Amino acid sequence: MTTSAPAVDRAAQHGRPVVPSASRWRPLGLDEVRLDGGFWGELQHRNATAMIAHTERWVERMGWAANFDLAAAGTLPEGRRGREFSDSEIYKLLEAMSWEVGRTGDADLDRRLRALASRVAAAQEPDGYISTMFGRPGQGARWSDPEWGHELYCIGHLIQAGVARARTHGDDELVQVAIRAADHVCEVFGPDGRQGVDGHPEIEPALVELYRLTGEHRYLDQARLFVERRGHGVLDDIELGRSYFQDDEPIRESTTLRGHAVRALYLAAGAADLAVEDGDTELLGAVTRQVRSALARRTYLTGGMGAHHEGESFGLDFELPPDRAYAETCAGIGSVMANHRLLLQSGDARHADAVERTLFNVLAASPSAEGTAFFYTNPLQQRVPGEVPDPDVPSPRAAASLRAPWFNVSCCPTNVTRTVASLAAYVASADDDGVQLHQYAAGTVAAIVGGEPVRLRVETGYPHDGRVLVTVEEAPAAWTLTLRVPAWGAGATVDAGDGPRAAEPGYVAVAGPGAGGRVVLDLPVAPRFTVADPRVDAVRGQVAVEAGPLVYALESVDLGEDVALARVDAGVAPEARDGAVTVRARTVAVPEEDWPYADRPAEGAAGEPRAVPLVPYHRWGNRGPSTMRVWLPVV
Amino acid sequence: MTTSAPAVDRAAQHGRPVVPSASRWRPLGLDEVRLDGGFWGELQHRNATAMIAHTERWVERMGWAANFDLAAAGTLPEGRRGREFSDSEIYKLLEAMSWEVGRTGDADLDRRLRALASRVAAAQEPDGYISTMFGRPGQGARWSDPEWGHELYCIGHLIQAGVARARTHGDDELVQVAIRAADHVCEVFGPDGRQGVDGHPEIEPALVELYRLTGEHRYLDQARLFVERRGHGVLDDIELGRSYFQDDEPIRESTTLRGHAVRALYLAAGAADLAVEDGDTELLGAVTRQVRSALARRTYLTGGMGAHHEGESFGLDFELPPDRAYAETCAGIGSVMANHRLLLQSGDARHADAVERTLFNVLAASPSAEGTAFFYTNPLQQRVPGEVPDPDVPSPRAAASLRAPWFNVSCCPTNVTRTVASLAAYVASADDDGVQLHQYAAGTVAAIVGGEPVRLRVETGYPHDGRVLVTVEEAPAAWTLTLRVPAWGAGATVDAGDGPRAAEPGYVAVAGPGAGGRVVLDLPVAPRFTVADPRVDAVRGQVAVEAGPLVYALESVDLGEDVALARVDAGVAPEARDGAVTVRARTVAVPEEDWPYADRPAEGAAGEPRAVPLVPYHRWGNRGPSTMRVWLPVV
Repeated sequence: MTTSAPAVDRAAQHGRPVVPSASRWRPLGLDEVRLDGGFWGELQHRNATAMIAHTERWVERMGWAANFDLAAAGTLPEGRRGREFSDSEIYKLLEAMSWEVGRTGDADLDRRLRALASRVAAAQEPDGYISTMFGRPGQGARWSDPEWGHELYCIGHLIQAGVARARTHGDDELVQVAIRAADHVCEVFGPDGRQGVDGHPEIEPALVELYRLTGEHRYLDQARLFVERRGHGVLDDIELGRSYFQDDEPIRESTTLRGHAVRALYLAAGAADLAVEDGDTELLGAVTRQVRSALARRTYLTGGMGAHHEGESFGLDFELPPDRAYAETCAGIGSVMANHRLLLQSGDARHADAVERTLFNVLAASPSAEGTAFFYTNPLQQRVPGEVPDPDVPSPRAAASLRAPWFNVSCCPTNVTRTVASLAAYVASADDDGVQLHQYAAGTVAAIVGGEPVRLRVETGYPHDGRVLVTVEEAPAAWTLTLRVPAWGAGATVDAGDGPRAAEPGYVAVAGPGAGGRVVLDLPVAPRFTVADPRVDAVRGQVAVEAGPLVYALESVDLGEDVALARVDAGVAPEARDGAVTVRARTVAVPEEDWPYADRPAEGAAGEPRAVPLVPYHRWGNRGPSTMRVWLPVV
Repeated sequence: MTTSAPAVDRAAQHGRPVVPSASRWRPLGLDEVRLDGGFWGELQHRNATAMIAHTERWVERMGWAANFDLAAAGTLPEGRRGREFSDSEIYKLLEAMSWEVGRTGDADLDRRLRALASRVAAAQEPDGYISTMFGRPGQGARWSDPEWGHELYCIGHLIQAGVARARTHGDDELVQVAIRAADHVCEVFGPDGRQGVDGHPEIEPALVELYRLTGEHRYLDQARLFVERRGHGVLDDIELGRSYFQDDEPIRESTTLRGHAVRALYLAAGAADLAVEDGDTELLGAVTRQVRSALARRTYLTGGMGAHHEGESFGLDFELPPDRAYAETCAGIGSVMANHRLLLQSGDARHADAVERTLFNVLAASPSAEGTAFFYTNPLQQRVPGEVPDPDVPSPRAAASLRAPWFNVSCCPTNVTRTVASLAAYVASADDDGVQLHQYAAGTVAAIVGGEPVRLRVETGYPHDGRVLVTVEEAPAAWTLTLRVPAWGAGATVDAGDGPRAAEPGYVAVAGPGAGGRVVLDLPVAPRFTVADPRVDAVRGQVAVEAGPLVYALESVDLGEDVALARVDAGVAPEARDGAVTVRARTVAVPEEDWPYADRPAEGAAGEPRAVPLVPYHRWGNRGPSTMRVWLPVV
């Protein structure tokens, strides 16, 4: 590592995507937390065996990887393919491969990673600049299109890939490419340089993380410049408004998240990182306030964020139409990023609840059962069955009615792969007193607590089974095990060997047993009805069904009719039997009229009440075209 | 007129925007139908005294009129201002001025019209091509951007202006410019020419109307080519999909309106015109089916069309969110155009109902009380009060929270002016047996029935008063007066001098009295609650209030609180007293929560039930920032 900065504790950063210099709880890395089967272990297996390779194939097929070869050969722009941000897909894939190699040591994947990184390295200019889209004769000049060019956005993802590689492998070509690019950015956009920002935040969290990795203050300083410049109208007042890229007001003054959801969430993550490193409680408070306001007023039941297709943006407070939910997969990942950071600082279970909800109902919903197709948007209602996308044709648009193999704008699949490969980072943390379990997944957790090792084995069928069994394999004499009880978990109990006691939603701390000791957490995962704040007009008179952290959905393949006609008896609790969740419902008949408004409701009873099966939302659309809804009108 | 075609009956076309060669009912023109005070007369007065002059000022101020001067001076593209379709605003203004001069004979306006038309004429190329945006060094080549260039769209509006001028004044420079442009289009896009269409329909109805004016078949043939070419993927598959410009399937095969609402409705109007001239019952049937399906499933209570901001497009069936309603003013005008054409052919009152609803609740909603600001979008719910637009600054976006003086994309104000100036065309029609009254407005109607004159005076305070008094001033011995009873008009009575009798919704025909005789129609305009088809999920559990053709709205300035908190007692009928409509309602308290979903509703009673005043929707927003809703949750 070409750094002259103060020594950085590499070991304490190993395998960790996010390593704040100060935090209430310290993150654990991919070596400390291992997922072993279960819901998340299976998804990581799917990522390893299908999704990453699928992504590798498609970036070749689309020519997005080859753009770097053309750049190295000096033949660009002729033959360049893809949109202005296509470089970022290669970088996110490199990040995914880095975490995955770090997690498994897969030698073949490591070889592919090195080969792809070398193709990227060959395209880097001598001064560190890198982009296949700008800077050559016949292309736009470097930095000439801050609103839409995505140059810094792409470099941000390159830096994240470099950080991932450095923290799983150590210095190598990819790491050096990232550092050279970051140094170039600091030269160009420093205090006396260009006073601009990128239309799409991402460079901000990347630079802070590179500072944490290297100890080089110039990266932190540059991140601070980018965060503070934004919000003063430095970008054009586009038709969507400057709020689209959070350039309408300084982040310190904002009260909520607004504009393009992914942009807003990446900025929130980066600003939180900056605030932590600067000890800037005002800034951290501003970000916290914005994220909490968005959770309270601008988030779908699934955790999805972004209510507008137009501008892929947040809607107004309580403007959350289920059918027009954009709820981009990448925005879900952005929410996980932001909430994870705020959790580590605050110890507030609301942020871990948000991470869990989003992982189960947005991230997990994106990939198909085979890992070869993805949702980009995640609506809570599908009005028409749609068509099965051609597995050989990228979708020209984001809102495919079923999972598509790839997209012309394909930010989500690569984002899913990097997040799934690093999922372990969200499971647990440590402090000087003990270990905190935030997410429940079968596997093992190891940490150093007060200088002594703690090793835990977690066994659970969660989320379908509410019992979480933690077996202590190694522990000091005195330590604390802290367990999250989700907000929906009223009635939970914890048993640390001295009998079950009530565990209120939030965090429950128990005296950690010695080696061989066990702690049992029982969470109430029986299915339940949920209603929305009455200001969410779009789901008035409707209920949703949740079980544990899972949101459920009704599909027409299970109803036998269009789900628009289902009416649920909210007086009969939903049931779970043999792994299936059912509600009592019937169908209604709605006569066809010339005009859909009248002095009295047109609806008439048609079917007998019966038990109708639901599916976990994350599995919807895996059985072909269907209409679907999460929110079900009541009888 | 430079036409060698068969003689055309000019007198029968005078003052008429749309003159089908065959129809069940013949349209009447601006000379036959005069509006005199009342709701529509006042709007025409506002148009004459404020809106047209406002529009003239803004096309100068924006430089859109001056673009033609630059073109004539040969200095373009330097200094050109406005978007690619800005020429069309000049043409729509010229159309408005033409109808207005025809209606009033205003000599000063006629002078301004001629002056503006001369500036346009000076910009026309020797071969008839006209555009300030394309074709010069430094500009895109002619016809190089069919998806977005709007060249034919603009020329379509030029032709409509020329037709309006010819039918109110006779041949002149504007008419000749339009004809030369149309001839050029036929040369370039004829059977052996370019096989393209324009991304935005408009040339189609324009060319058919020019054929009707001139008798020149080449215009009809060209319109047919444009209608039949579309729908076969002749335009690019853009991210919004080819349905955006109705190029996804041939119009004969479509079952509903889809894509960009204005595009869809202009195409429907043009295809209906073509079908009539060709005697093409299949095509007319297809258009009728599409429009009726859209009325039954894709139309707001206001008559507004277009549920998506994204692509300014129709949503799916029953996807009609009130807060995200786009309901563009121009789409309302397009709906009036399409339904007027289908009414003349079918005699089906549903189309006149749609025209009425749209005129009162979309068209009339756009201009401010002063006629100097306009709504572009017409949502049925306003969640935040918004800000008062600067009267000196054009809005950079369509969805201003209050009426804006102008827009960077300013299609709506000019469209409103041309429609209001020609409003009389929608009021009445004639056939060989008598006269049909479709819209009720104070004024006079004259027609030739069976070769003999009929002259009627209409007195009414409609829509606030349901009584329509028709006094016969001149009539033949035997004739028929046909009156529309709107679909909401159950309980209406008609009295042709022999006592009141029930008049069912649809059309009621009475034997026309002789001179001095009177016919009284009484329509029930007491306010009433309306509910939506249950598939319109977004307004479940909510009622709207209508009175006659007017939709009502609740504004926070009247409630004293955010309208989100209002709950209406649907068991107490709305009341009309002293011209004000009230409902019985109270407000509720909604506690602030960290997360907007829970196992039980959070709402609690707060206020006492009281009478709360509503305003006609078309007047909302005239008293400054306010939250607003048409659909009101019930207790």
